Amino acid sequence: MLMQTHEARLKALREELKRRDLDGFIVPISDEHMSEYVGDYAQRLNWLTGFGGSAGFAAVTRDQAAIFVDGRYTVQVKDQVDENLFEYRNIPNDSLGEWLAAKAGDGAKIAYDPWLHTWAWVEALEKVVEPKGIEMVPATSNPIDAVWADQPVPSGAQAIVHEDTLSGRPSAEKRAEVADWLAEHDLDAVVIPALDSVAWLLNIRGGDVSHTPVALSYVIAKQDGSAELFIAPEKVTPELTRHLGNAVTVRDRSEFQAALGEYSGKRVSVDPTFGVVGIAQGLRDGGAKFVFKEDPTILAKAIKNPAEVQGHRDAQARDGAAVSRFLRWIEVTAPSGEIDELTAAAKLEDFRRAHGDLRDTSFDTISAAAGHAALPHYKVDEDTNIPIPPGSIYLVDSGGQYPAGTTDITRTVWINSADGSAKPTAEMKDRFTRVLKGHIQIDQATFPQGTNGGQIDCLARQYLWEAGVDYAHGTGHGVGSFLGVHEGPQRIAKPSGGQAGTSQELFEGMILSNEPGYYKAGEFGIRIENLVLTVAKDIEGAEGRFLGFDCLTFVPLDRTLIEKSLLAAEEIAWVDAYHAKVREIVAPQLEGDDLAWLERHTQRL
Amino acid sequence: MLMQTHEARLKALREELKRRDLDGFIVPISDEHMSEYVGDYAQRLNWLTGFGGSAGFAAVTRDQAAIFVDGRYTVQVKDQVDENLFEYRNIPNDSLGEWLAAKAGDGAKIAYDPWLHTWAWVEALEKVVEPKGIEMVPATSNPIDAVWADQPVPSGAQAIVHEDTLSGRPSAEKRAEVADWLAEHDLDAVVIPALDSVAWLLNIRGGDVSHTPVALSYVIAKQDGSAELFIAPEKVTPELTRHLGNAVTVRDRSEFQAALGEYSGKRVSVDPTFGVVGIAQGLRDGGAKFVFKEDPTILAKAIKNPAEVQGHRDAQARDGAAVSRFLRWIEVTAPSGEIDELTAAAKLEDFRRAHGDLRDTSFDTISAAAGHAALPHYKVDEDTNIPIPPGSIYLVDSGGQYPAGTTDITRTVWINSADGSAKPTAEMKDRFTRVLKGHIQIDQATFPQGTNGGQIDCLARQYLWEAGVDYAHGTGHGVGSFLGVHEGPQRIAKPSGGQAGTSQELFEGMILSNEPGYYKAGEFGIRIENLVLTVAKDIEGAEGRFLGFDCLTFVPLDRTLIEKSLLAAEEIAWVDAYHAKVREIVAPQLEGDDLAWLERHTQRL
Repeated sequence: MLMQTHEARLKALREELKRRDLDGFIVPISDEHMSEYVGDYAQRLNWLTGFGGSAGFAAVTRDQAAIFVDGRYTVQVKDQVDENLFEYRNIPNDSLGEWLAAKAGDGAKIAYDPWLHTWAWVEALEKVVEPKGIEMVPATSNPIDAVWADQPVPSGAQAIVHEDTLSGRPSAEKRAEVADWLAEHDLDAVVIPALDSVAWLLNIRGGDVSHTPVALSYVIAKQDGSAELFIAPEKVTPELTRHLGNAVTVRDRSEFQAALGEYSGKRVSVDPTFGVVGIAQGLRDGGAKFVFKEDPTILAKAIKNPAEVQGHRDAQARDGAAVSRFLRWIEVTAPSGEIDELTAAAKLEDFRRAHGDLRDTSFDTISAAAGHAALPHYKVDEDTNIPIPPGSIYLVDSGGQYPAGTTDITRTVWINSADGSAKPTAEMKDRFTRVLKGHIQIDQATFPQGTNGGQIDCLARQYLWEAGVDYAHGTGHGVGSFLGVHEGPQRIAKPSGGQAGTSQELFEGMILSNEPGYYKAGEFGIRIENLVLTVAKDIEGAEGRFLGFDCLTFVPLDRTLIEKSLLAAEEIAWVDAYHAKVREIVAPQLEGDDLAWLERHTQRL
Repeated sequence: MLMQTHEARLKALREELKRRDLDGFIVPISDEHMSEYVGDYAQRLNWLTGFGGSAGFAAVTRDQAAIFVDGRYTVQVKDQVDENLFEYRNIPNDSLGEWLAAKAGDGAKIAYDPWLHTWAWVEALEKVVEPKGIEMVPATSNPIDAVWADQPVPSGAQAIVHEDTLSGRPSAEKRAEVADWLAEHDLDAVVIPALDSVAWLLNIRGGDVSHTPVALSYVIAKQDGSAELFIAPEKVTPELTRHLGNAVTVRDRSEFQAALGEYSGKRVSVDPTFGVVGIAQGLRDGGAKFVFKEDPTILAKAIKNPAEVQGHRDAQARDGAAVSRFLRWIEVTAPSGEIDELTAAAKLEDFRRAHGDLRDTSFDTISAAAGHAALPHYKVDEDTNIPIPPGSIYLVDSGGQYPAGTTDITRTVWINSADGSAKPTAEMKDRFTRVLKGHIQIDQATFPQGTNGGQIDCLARQYLWEAGVDYAHGTGHGVGSFLGVHEGPQRIAKPSGGQAGTSQELFEGMILSNEPGYYKAGEFGIRIENLVLTVAKDIEGAEGRFLGFDCLTFVPLDRTLIEKSLLAAEEIAWVDAYHAKVREIVAPQLEGDDLAWLERHTQRL
C-alpha cells in the first residue's frame, strides 16, 4: 500500500467535514482520559500533519489550516509539517479562537471531538468565537477516524493485578475512603477517567500506554463502596476478576457512554481537568445532577504509604546500580568519540533490563550531548542523533518503571578526550556547582507543615540568581508508584510560567523530584536530579510540625564538574555523606571494574 | 452630662432599629474609604461596645447581640466588652451569616451601612443568609449616628499641597497616565475612594486620619485628564485651589453621592477592595455601566520615582539619628527599672520631634517589654503599661511621617541590670541570630524580574525553620511616600494565613519592609526591621534582568543579642559593613554621649 501524503489526508478530512456539513475541525493530541502520554490510535495530529511533538493542535477549515505549537517546537514544526498545508501559529501568542474567527466567518459550524477536550477548554473557545457568529459543535464521532484507513487499534494488552504487598492498601479500603468522601460532599457517585487514578483505586496496572503502566478504562465509584470498571473484555483475566471481587462490576468499555445515562436524579462529580466534555454531556443528558470536583484519589495517591515507600527505596537501589554501571561505561567508551546519543540511551536501557524487573522506561530517555543538553526536553531520534563529542558535557535524564516503584534521575557528566587531557571550562564548573548547591538546599530544607512547593522553590535557584542566571522549568514534580513519572498535585516551582507551581501543601509521604539545572543555548546543559521523599523532621524544641526530605536516589555525582572552592564546609560534608550512602547502597550490587569505578567516584571530595 | 452606659447605647440603637422597622444591624470598624485607620467619627463599634481593637464588628438584633474579633483580641474583648450585652464570637471560626440565621430567623430584615462595606462582603453574606429567609437591607443613613449624641464631627483639618519637588511628578502627568489607562480599558471615568490614592494622584496631603497624612475626599478621574475632587469646602485653601489648577474641579464632599448619578450611559470603574456598596449602587442607580477594576494608581504609587527615593533616604537618615539617640537613652536609663513602656514610647516621639520635620508617627508605637514583645501587634496603653524589667528584651517598632518620606523600623535590644551583670539566655541569642540571618538573606537577595515577594519569603524564615520555629506574620509590606505605612500591592509573605502574600511581582522602585521575627509566648519577642528599596542589580554576564534590595534604614543592631558563632563569614561581613554605613550616615547628626554610643555600637563584630 502506498503511503498516503499529508496533502491527501487533509483533503480526505475536508471531504468528510463536507459530508457532515461542518465548516471546520480541531485536532488535538489527547485521548479520552486527558492522558500525558497517548496511545498510537490517538495520534491523530501526527497522522494529519506529520508533527511528532508531544503538545500542540491543528485547526482545519474548508480552505485553511493551521498548526499551533509552543516555543519548544517552533524549529521542529518547520522540519516536520508542510507550510503549504498548515500555517504555523505560536502558543500562547496566537489565539485559536481569533484564528477561527478570521478564517471561518459568521455562521460557520466548527466541530470538536467531545471525548478529547475538557469543558473549560470548549467554554473558553466559545467565549471568543460565539460573538463572531461561529458555533462550536461536538462531533458525534471523530471525522479523522472515518478517513484514517490504517488507524492502529487501541492496545489489547491485558490488565494485571497490582499486589497489595506493593500497593500497601487493598482496593476495598481505598474505595471506602472514596465512599466517605462522596457522603461528605453529598454525592452519589464519582466518574474517574484519569487512567492512573483508576489503576490506583483498583490496584490494577496495564500495558496500554507507553511509559505509564495503565489500562484504558474508566471507573464509576459509588457511595456504598462499590464500583463499576469499564474496560475492553479481552483485557480481563480470571485472576483480575478474582482480584476485583464482588463489589467491582466489570463492564465493557463500549458501554461507558450509555452508562452515564443511568444516573438520572443522582448527584455525580467528575474532575474538571481529566473529565472530557463527553462525560459531562453524557451525565447531563441522562438527567444526573452533575458537578465538577477534583478527583478524590489524586491527593491520596500522592501520599505514599510505608509499603510504597519501601518499594521506591528498593526500585531506586536497583536503578542506581544500573545507572552507575552505565556511567562507568560511558566514561570509558565515550572519549573515543564513537558513541552516539541513541547508542547511549539503548545501552542505559540494557543496564536497567539486566536486573530483570524493568517493565518499561518511565519516559523517553533524554540522552543529550553538548549543545543538545541545553534543550531541557531534548528528544533524541534518528534525525537529531549525534556522536557524543569528547571534551564535552553529556546529560542523561531517564527512569524506569519497576513494579515496586517508578524512578527518574538526571546526571550530568564530563566526557574526557581520548588522551584524558580535556578539562571543563571554569564557566561549566561554576554553573554545575551552583546547580549542585541549590540541589543540596532543597535536599536539606526544613519547613513547617502547611508549606507548598512554590515557597521553597527559590532555595534551589538562589545561587544561580546570584550569578544572574536561572532555569526555565520547575524544580520538582510528583512521582507515582509504578504509575506516572509526572504525578500531581504537588510541585516545587515558580507560581507562573512553564510547569507552574500549585497551592498544594506538601505532606509526609509525597515523593518529588529535586532537579535544578542550567542551560547555555547551543553550548551545554546541566541538571542534577534525585527523587526525595517528604518526611517529618524531629527537631528538639520544635514549635509545631516540621517537614523535610529524605533522598531516594543514589548514583555518584561527577566531581570533575564540581568547583570545590564555591562549596561551604557543610555542602562538602553533604556531598561526602551522599557518596558514602551511594557506596553503601550500590556497592553490594556491583563487582569488578564497576565496583572499582564506584569506589573511585564515591571518595571524599 | 452623664456618660451613657453601653447598655443604654445598645437599647437606643435597638429602639432606632424598631422605628425603622429593621430586625438587626451590622457595626464594623470602617469608613467610607475602607481605610486602614479610621477617624473618631467612624469609631461606631467602640462607642457601642467599648471595644478598642483595630479589627472586628458587632451584630445586633432585636434581642441578641454579638461581637466578632480575631485571635489577637480574644483577651482584650473580655476586658472591654460586657458579655451580658454582647456574646463573644471568634473570627474566622464563627460565621456572621450563620449567627444571623440562628438569631434573626425567617423573614428578618438585617440592615448594613452601604458606605462601610464592600460589594463582595455583602454578596458573601447574602449567599449565607438569603436561603434562610433573611434579607440584607442597605440603611439609608447609619442608625448609630441617629442615636450617638456626642458623635465627633469628621476632622476639619486643611488639605495641603504636596510639592512636586517631593512627589517627583506633577499631578497633571499622573492624571494623563490614568487617562491613558481609561482609554485602554474603554472606560470614561474611574471613581477613586482610597484616601492615599486621592492624595497621590492630586499631590495633596491632609490631617484627617491619624498616622496617615490624607484628607477625607473622593476623586473621579476622567478620560480627558480632568478630575473632580469631592472634599469639605473648609479644607480647601486658596493655595490648594491654585495647585489643583483648572483641570481639577473642586466640589463639596456632600455632593459626591449625587454626582455618581451624573454618569448615565458612561463606563465607570471602581476598585472592588476600596469601593463601598454605596458607590457601586450610586453608579448603577444613575444608569452608569459600572465595572470593578483595580484602582489604576495603586501600582504607579508603589513604584517610587527618584525624587521620592531621595526623600526616603533623607527621612530615614533623620529618623535613624532620632532612633539611635533613643536607643542610647534606653540603654542608659532602663537598667534602673524605672522606665515604663509608655514613657519610652513618648521619649522616642520626643527624639523624632526634636528634628523639627516630623508630622506624625506613622502608626502607634509598639513599645513592648519582656512578655509583651511576644505579641507582634502589642499596643501599649494605660492599662497594659508595665515598667521595662532590667535583664529583659525590649522591642520597639515605630515610624515617623516626614514630608519627604514615611519610616518604619523595629529594633530589639537587651536591657541590662543596674549592675550591668544580666546576660541574655542562649535561647534568646540563638533566636535573635537566626532572625538576623534571615534579615540578611532578604537584604542580600538577588532574583529575576517577574518574581513576587512570596517567592523569596522563605529566605527570611529558613534558619528559624531549621530550628523548628517560625513567625506568624508577613516578612515585608510596602511603604508609602508620606502616605500609608502599609501600602500595597506588593508584599513578602506566605501565600496564605495572616497578612497573606500577593501575586504582585516586585519592580524597581518599590519600597518594602524586611522584618522577620520570633516570639516566645509570655517570655520574649524579637523583630529586626529595616526598609529596603527594590533596585536593579548589575551582574556581569547576567542572562536577563535581575533585581535586589538597597537598605534604607540605618540604626545599630544590638550586638549583645548576636551569637557570633552562628554567623557565616559573609554574614559577619554584612553586619560590619552595615554598621560602617550606619556610622557614616548617622554620626554627622550626633554629638557628645550620643556620638560615643554610636561609635561603640558600630564597631566591627
